[in-house]
Amino acid sequence: MVRVGIFGATGYTGYELVKILSQHPQAAIVFATSQASAGQTLDVMYPQAPRLPLILGEEAPLDQVDVVFLCLPHAAAAETAVSALQSGCKVIDLSADFRIKDVAVYEKWYKVTHPAPALLAEAVYGLTEFARDALPQTRLVANPGCYTTTSLLALQPIMAAGVKTTGDIIIDAKSGVSGAGRNPAANTHFMAVNDNLSPYKIGRAHRHLPEMEAIIKEWHPAAPNLIFSPHLLPVPRGILANIYVPLAEPWSEADLRQLYLDTYADEPFVRVLPQGELATLAHVTHTNRCAISLTLAGNMLILTSATDNLIKGASGQAVQNMNVMFGLDETSGLI
Amino acid sequence: MVRVGIFGATGYTGYELVKILSQHPQAAIVFATSQASAGQTLDVMYPQAPRLPLILGEEAPLDQVDVVFLCLPHAAAAETAVSALQSGCKVIDLSADFRIKDVAVYEKWYKVTHPAPALLAEAVYGLTEFARDALPQTRLVANPGCYTTTSLLALQPIMAAGVKTTGDIIIDAKSGVSGAGRNPAANTHFMAVNDNLSPYKIGRAHRHLPEMEAIIKEWHPAAPNLIFSPHLLPVPRGILANIYVPLAEPWSEADLRQLYLDTYADEPFVRVLPQGELATLAHVTHTNRCAISLTLAGNMLILTSATDNLIKGASGQAVQNMNVMFGLDETSGLI
Amino acid sequence: MVRVGIFGATGYTGYELVKILSQHPQAAIVFATSQASAGQTLDVMYPQAPRLPLILGEEAPLDQVDVVFLCLPHAAAAETAVSALQSGCKVIDLSADFRIKDVAVYEKWYKVTHPAPALLAEAVYGLTEFARDALPQTRLVANPGCYTTTSLLALQPIMAAGVKTTGDIIIDAKSGVSGAGRNPAANTHFMAVNDNLSPYKIGRAHRHLPEMEAIIKEWHPAAPNLIFSPHLLPVPRGILANIYVPLAEPWSEADLRQLYLDTYADEPFVRVLPQGELATLAHVTHTNRCAISLTLAGNMLILTSATDNLIKGASGQAVQNMNVMFGLDETSGLI
Amino acid sequence: MVRVGIFGATGYTGYELVKILSQHPQAAIVFATSQASAGQTLDVMYPQAPRLPLILGEEAPLDQVDVVFLCLPHAAAAETAVSALQSGCKVIDLSADFRIKDVAVYEKWYKVTHPAPALLAEAVYGLTEFARDALPQTRLVANPGCYTTTSLLALQPIMAAGVKTTGDIIIDAKSGVSGAGRNPAANTHFMAVNDNLSPYKIGRAHRHLPEMEAIIKEWHPAAPNLIFSPHLLPVPRGILANIYVPLAEPWSEADLRQLYLDTYADEPFVRVLPQGELATLAHVTHTNRCAISLTLAGNMLILTSATDNLIKGASGQAVQNMNVMFGLDETSGLI
Repeated sequence: MVRVGIFGATGYTGYELVKILSQHPQAAIVFATSQASAGQTLDVMYPQAPRLPLILGEEAPLDQVDVVFLCLPHAAAAETAVSALQSGCKVIDLSADFRIKDVAVYEKWYKVTHPAPALLAEAVYGLTEFARDALPQTRLVANPGCYTTTSLLALQPIMAAGVKTTGDIIIDAKSGVSGAGRNPAANTHFMAVNDNLSPYKIGRAHRHLPEMEAIIKEWHPAAPNLIFSPHLLPVPRGILANIYVPLAEPWSEADLRQLYLDTYADEPFVRVLPQGELATLAHVTHTNRCAISLTLAGNMLILTSATDNLIKGASGQAVQNMNVMFGLDETSGLI
Repeated sequence: MVRVGIFGATGYTGYELVKILSQHPQAAIVFATSQASAGQTLDVMYPQAPRLPLILGEEAPLDQVDVVFLCLPHAAAAETAVSALQSGCKVIDLSADFRIKDVAVYEKWYKVTHPAPALLAEAVYGLTEFARDALPQTRLVANPGCYTTTSLLALQPIMAAGVKTTGDIIIDAKSGVSGAGRNPAANTHFMAVNDNLSPYKIGRAHRHLPEMEAIIKEWHPAAPNLIFSPHLLPVPRGILANIYVPLAEPWSEADLRQLYLDTYADEPFVRVLPQGELATLAHVTHTNRCAISLTLAGNMLILTSATDNLIKGASGQAVQNMNVMFGLDETSGLI
Repeated sequence: MVRVGIFGATGYTGYELVKILSQHPQAAIVFATSQASAGQTLDVMYPQAPRLPLILGEEAPLDQVDVVFLCLPHAAAAETAVSALQSGCKVIDLSADFRIKDVAVYEKWYKVTHPAPALLAEAVYGLTEFARDALPQTRLVANPGCYTTTSLLALQPIMAAGVKTTGDIIIDAKSGVSGAGRNPAANTHFMAVNDNLSPYKIGRAHRHLPEMEAIIKEWHPAAPNLIFSPHLLPVPRGILANIYVPLAEPWSEADLRQLYLDTYADEPFVRVLPQGELATLAHVTHTNRCAISLTLAGNMLILTSATDNLIKGASGQAVQNMNVMFGLDETSGLI
Repeated sequence: MVRVGIFGATGYTGYELVKILSQHPQAAIVFATSQASAGQTLDVMYPQAPRLPLILGEEAPLDQVDVVFLCLPHAAAAETAVSALQSGCKVIDLSADFRIKDVAVYEKWYKVTHPAPALLAEAVYGLTEFARDALPQTRLVANPGCYTTTSLLALQPIMAAGVKTTGDIIIDAKSGVSGAGRNPAANTHFMAVNDNLSPYKIGRAHRHLPEMEAIIKEWHPAAPNLIFSPHLLPVPRGILANIYVPLAEPWSEADLRQLYLDTYADEPFVRVLPQGELATLAHVTHTNRCAISLTLAGNMLILTSATDNLIKGASGQAVQNMNVMFGLDETSGLI
């Protein structure tokens, strides 16, 4: 039984972790923290939640857990990671703090001094499907961002095949409102979201862009630049991205589909759709799955990729990583 | 041309007034105020709004308008009413300040000392259909609450007919989110509203209950008590109420329907639905209408009443009142 | 391992059963039928569903299962029940065919000749919390309707306590769209539902009314009549009902709450909320739970009761019944 | 007063025309047709509609109107156009029948023999902002498609400026459900749309693609090919498109914006947004407006364009065209 602590349990990803781990047959939640709601129980915020007591982060009994999940703001996460690692826990960090290896890039985009740059080298980027060898060896996992997971799972097969493009790759992505966080704000008010669709930070302005480019260029140095257009959708959860890849050489749709089928043949959570079926949010919400469809229009490959931003895009993948780190069945506790 | 000032133009009822008055052929907006957004223009908050400059309330040129609409919090509204009346403007107050004649009842429910109790006697309760004689004579209108308008228009014919009940009248009412105001809060976050339905302050706990009871007992001293159950619906606008009247004597549905058809035969904004058709939000949203259907089950009369909470339940009725006060066509600027 | 067959797997309750039983540790789906989609697999209708083959009902291997769930239209369900019982299977019928013991009442409301009236006497009405003794002995369960489950769980404690009322009990209930079925129709088109709220068949006109009255008067012959007002809500799932009970004698809210707490103290799926917390859909959707809150306003008791219409109101309760019938842990496969 | 007939008044565009024309100060509806609902009145389908009688198309008094609007299926529209023109009416056709001049292209995409190819040459493509000179001279207007209007208004300034691209232009577009029509179908059921986002016919597969390419290449023969990805959004109305233009030469965002501001400086219905403000559905729904924002990321220009698919994308633009054809104020009856 893996003993687990959750830092930041009252946000959406924290609560999703509680839901998953409460049903996980080989994990037990030992503590859950909240700076704002310590002393209360989680069901005050979420009527379906268990009566899980919330404690202050500084009172967390780190010596009683095997692993901690960090659902904290950036910088705060890295600081907590330091303490947890010192106590001998493994750390799965759902913040951005250990995703970008280049401190300067991180500090430019997050406008904060990195609290623990010395840990960056050892952090494993936890896109589980491409991190299985490294995960059992590490004590620190940088859990990927939601948009990044959705995009990289779709891009990785074709990039690994060395495909050339005639220009930038465009990611036109749409996310449910849970991606914007639980803090009430003008842009998450029901009246602002319902019956609306809002692009935000499009082009090269959103913080997941440098994360995606850093990973993809680390893995494939010749990769082109990305254009990334996120939107706020009037749905609670789920990300759907259209990824436009202008191929420099002609491919057949059958060959492309075979490449994807081969790459993901044994993956429990990635599903390459058959010809004629396009990925939708309904393929993936409330699951840890990623659904990918391929459409070829001339030399333009359109990858449509869908995940649940709170599960495969955050807490589900975090548990998937935990499963691999601790030698459990990778699908344990996940659907 | 009636010259108009709007106090509190950035809330939902203020913006709705701007929309209606901008299309009104016989009214012109002279100023619009906002304490929080003075110096900006209204389109910053509402992308479809005109570039209407917002000024501080204390800088409003009261001498340049014929009438002011008060879309202000309670107590603040009464204070502004005093200044406006002193300047010679007429006042249409959309707050609760002049709806309840009994200061003690008002102060108990609103937990504030009434700033202008001396004005209560002259204020006309502006449920337009039942205030046409008084409106042209008054300089101060208390515009009814949204739940109250929806309920009183349905109840008034039967109460005026002297119907007796065997017990309390129950109002089970459901409102769109705009009724909860524009301030971002946990309960108006998209994630809290979407796919949900939430009752709140049910029984005898909501502030529109004493307003409804005060008016109905002023008009019909033998009226029974009310039970009132409001809910927050996952829609932007509209109120639908089921009103359960346990009749003490047998009535036929045909006689009841005829009573309603007679009462509202000449009303431009109240529609009594034919047998077999039930009122829905779709009958009324984006209009100044009230739709009423009648269902008889044994001796239980069920009145289903629907309005748009921002229009007939607030700003539309306010303009309807203005039209009557100034001798214009009552339907001018309204649909 | 209980071997299960599902008749009518492509409707919402059938698919919900597939989802629940696919995760159930002690049940295995042997077959699933569909008259319209036989030869296809379930994921054609539901992108997240397993590739479960669909067969014609007449080809179902009844000798290979221990129990069948009937998610069929009324009358068709009873006919299939006859065959299944003859083959020695137990039957859990989610249709209305065995809920009402009085054939004349059934035939009046469902406008069809009952295909198997001889089975009515032995059918157990499967409101699990009040059927635990009978379930292990029976081979035929009438699974309660969604509105009925929601209402009876709230009414049963007070009716069992012998409370008297001064008049009818009113049930003002609101249901998500899945309750209207998967068949595309004008009233389930997104454009008809979104931003709308529609009452339908209010008063004494909906088929769940005779079901509720039949059960409640069988259990409590002195029970008053019911008034029942269903609505279509713009949400996918969940029922919330306000039940107004005009008490003939004064009660304290504390005594009433204690009565409910005592009744449901050991129930895994019924939660009586503490004072000040009102039941909402968010308490129950995607679970087998019923949440009940109590509000007292004078002598009017308002019970607010919420369930997920597809789970506790249909397929979840059906599995709960199966668990009891086969001696399994009652909560197995359910949350 | 322009006398108007509407063919096909019960679909969403037909009803939208009724709403607009009912408020239009210089137009009067003489008749409205419906093949399925002749003999009924429009309010049976739409509770807010006027009691407009519906007649069969073949009984329409063409001699009593100046202009007819055709909200009919393709092919049926062209047949009705022939009759109407013979009767001396002007015709504004909201179907696709006269949008594509090349009969072979039309017949390939619409899989029907064109009923009136001889009329194609005289039909004016009614993207009003670019058709003002031709509209007063013509008796036949092909009203543009909704996606096409949204896309062409955004693309036209840069194409007219002779900008070169390094590859295809990508249009990633999202539409509200009214775009899918009023016929109940599996894909428009509330359960299929709510909480979902579905791409359909992406790449080069949707019928608006040949319309867009035909027009843009007629106007700018050197224009590149288009890639077009439509989606079904869980909102009732509105289209938002991101249009990706890979510029072959460097431009500054300021120069691009100035180009757009200059093009649309005097347009009542096209609004170019200031830097930092992105177009959303909330800018345009329930209006005849198009909102366009520009974002430059390297050499990738992202045009974000929004319209209400039922108004500027259909019935509003049709009325705008009527206004120009009959010498009325172009904005009459429109907001």
